[in-house]
Amino acid sequence: MMGGKSLGRGAELAAGRQEKDMKTTKGLNAKKTEAREYQTGDSGIFFTVKDVLYEGRSKFQRIEIIRNKDYGRVLLLDGLVQTTEKDEFYYHEMLVHPAMASHPRPDRVLIIGGGDGGALREVLKHPVEKAWLVEIDGKVIEACREHFPWLRATFRDPRAELVVEDGNVFVDKVREKFDVILVDSSDPVGPSTVLHQEAFYRKLKTKLAPGGIIAAQAGSLMLHLESHARKGAFLRKIFRHAALYLGPVPTYPVGMWCYDFLSDRVDPDEVKTLYLPDGLKYFNPDVFRGSFALPNFLAERMKKGK
Amino acid sequence: MMGGKSLGRGAELAAGRQEKDMKTTKGLNAKKTEAREYQTGDSGIFFTVKDVLYEGRSKFQRIEIIRNKDYGRVLLLDGLVQTTEKDEFYYHEMLVHPAMASHPRPDRVLIIGGGDGGALREVLKHPVEKAWLVEIDGKVIEACREHFPWLRATFRDPRAELVVEDGNVFVDKVREKFDVILVDSSDPVGPSTVLHQEAFYRKLKTKLAPGGIIAAQAGSLMLHLESHARKGAFLRKIFRHAALYLGPVPTYPVGMWCYDFLSDRVDPDEVKTLYLPDGLKYFNPDVFRGSFALPNFLAERMKKGK
Repeated sequence: MMGGKSLGRGAELAAGRQEKDMKTTKGLNAKKTEAREYQTGDSGIFFTVKDVLYEGRSKFQRIEIIRNKDYGRVLLLDGLVQTTEKDEFYYHEMLVHPAMASHPRPDRVLIIGGGDGGALREVLKHPVEKAWLVEIDGKVIEACREHFPWLRATFRDPRAELVVEDGNVFVDKVREKFDVILVDSSDPVGPSTVLHQEAFYRKLKTKLAPGGIIAAQAGSLMLHLESHARKGAFLRKIFRHAALYLGPVPTYPVGMWCYDFLSDRVDPDEVKTLYLPDGLKYFNPDVFRGSFALPNFLAERMKKGK
Repeated sequence: MMGGKSLGRGAELAAGRQEKDMKTTKGLNAKKTEAREYQTGDSGIFFTVKDVLYEGRSKFQRIEIIRNKDYGRVLLLDGLVQTTEKDEFYYHEMLVHPAMASHPRPDRVLIIGGGDGGALREVLKHPVEKAWLVEIDGKVIEACREHFPWLRATFRDPRAELVVEDGNVFVDKVREKFDVILVDSSDPVGPSTVLHQEAFYRKLKTKLAPGGIIAAQAGSLMLHLESHARKGAFLRKIFRHAALYLGPVPTYPVGMWCYDFLSDRVDPDEVKTLYLPDGLKYFNPDVFRGSFALPNFLAERMKKGK
């Protein structure tokens, strides 16, 4: 999950907390023995650091890749966990396959964000003609290519085109139409707020080929409830079918993640045939259908609107 | 979640870690500014401590109740999070209602464990005649009754009978038959292993009234995979219908939780009518159906057997 600056995850709960205070404790500690992320203002996740593989700073953010005994390699941007070797498949399969498997012929695919290459790897399991990956931060791609070596083949796939650019700017210029667009952005708070706003989705819609589908990471079930309500209200105006679906991601705040499924033609409740590649670890037709079941507190908040 | 000693959660991943080492960092730290739980051997969850409401030790375990700004009151047993004010409904609704709502007349209900009273509260939302709560550790009930004051009414409900006893021993002696039995135990590692073993489930089955259903907390999706496989293998021998279902619990390791649904008569795939009380925050019929969808890695491991 990336594609923009990654500040502010958890900010809806953390409003009372001093930013200064958070900076001293987010990401790697001074002795590099532990990395921690505040997922809410006053609680979070920690990883014992086996070793630090990469530490750097780009124009956009602080980049850290550490190794943890249980989760393997962990990528942090500005101290927030983006992906870990052990659990990345939960997220990447659930972001990519609901849309890809619902489309009978996803020839042309756009990924906004996703510089770690995990979403791209899942997309390329389908018989696509071409997949664009548009990541704002070239340093993230470099660091991941170096330190997640099993993804090198993905980045080299002749069907993949890497573009280092702000996804919002790319979408303004591009003349292609896409069968599937995947928004693998950071969270709906802070500077990447733009990738969660109405104007952006109106623009994205104009880049969809007929029958096209958008899937977008939409934040945490528990922490981003107001964002789901606000976003749901405008997405239902833009798209004939706008549904939220859920999937767990162990290292994301706070474990249960949300995604938007958006299309004018494809109603996820009516999908009869799913086009599934082999070798998936998480996703299957039962998971697809089950993932659109929303708990009462979320369904009620969504129904109330923004 | 409780009902036995709560040692060893995460032990499947933590085998290499020294117990001594964990003891120094699990639960409240020395300055009482932070409580933390190692969910795997080398990663976990932390809570900033607003204040400590209770610290004690029973014959069975260390009991701590702290207050955290975001999660409210947090109960820890031997340093492991059992329940928090903010997210307990995820767990308690998903443990209780799939079985209770599938049963047309759950008059008599047995809860093994669950000394915090959350499962009992959910059970009493149904028109039951009598509910037994059998908790091994009376001090847990006392501490929760004192510091989770909104549960006092639950404990005082005339339909509730509190029994302070080892659930395994209670089941040997009791002459009642139950329509629904809920196993709200600690995890399938360490001393409460007995509540996850074949002999216990064979015994429980003899305590089910005709058409009865058992639901049992079964551990973490990611951390207890071997336990799901081992347990699934013997449960399918004992019960005509033995299915695993999932529900997220933000503060449990690592976010996604598993439960067993066991019955000789009720097939969860064939349940047509769900008997739902008002006022639920999580559970509904879509959630019920969706929760039985298992990700590939779990379904494949279960199919392989123990």
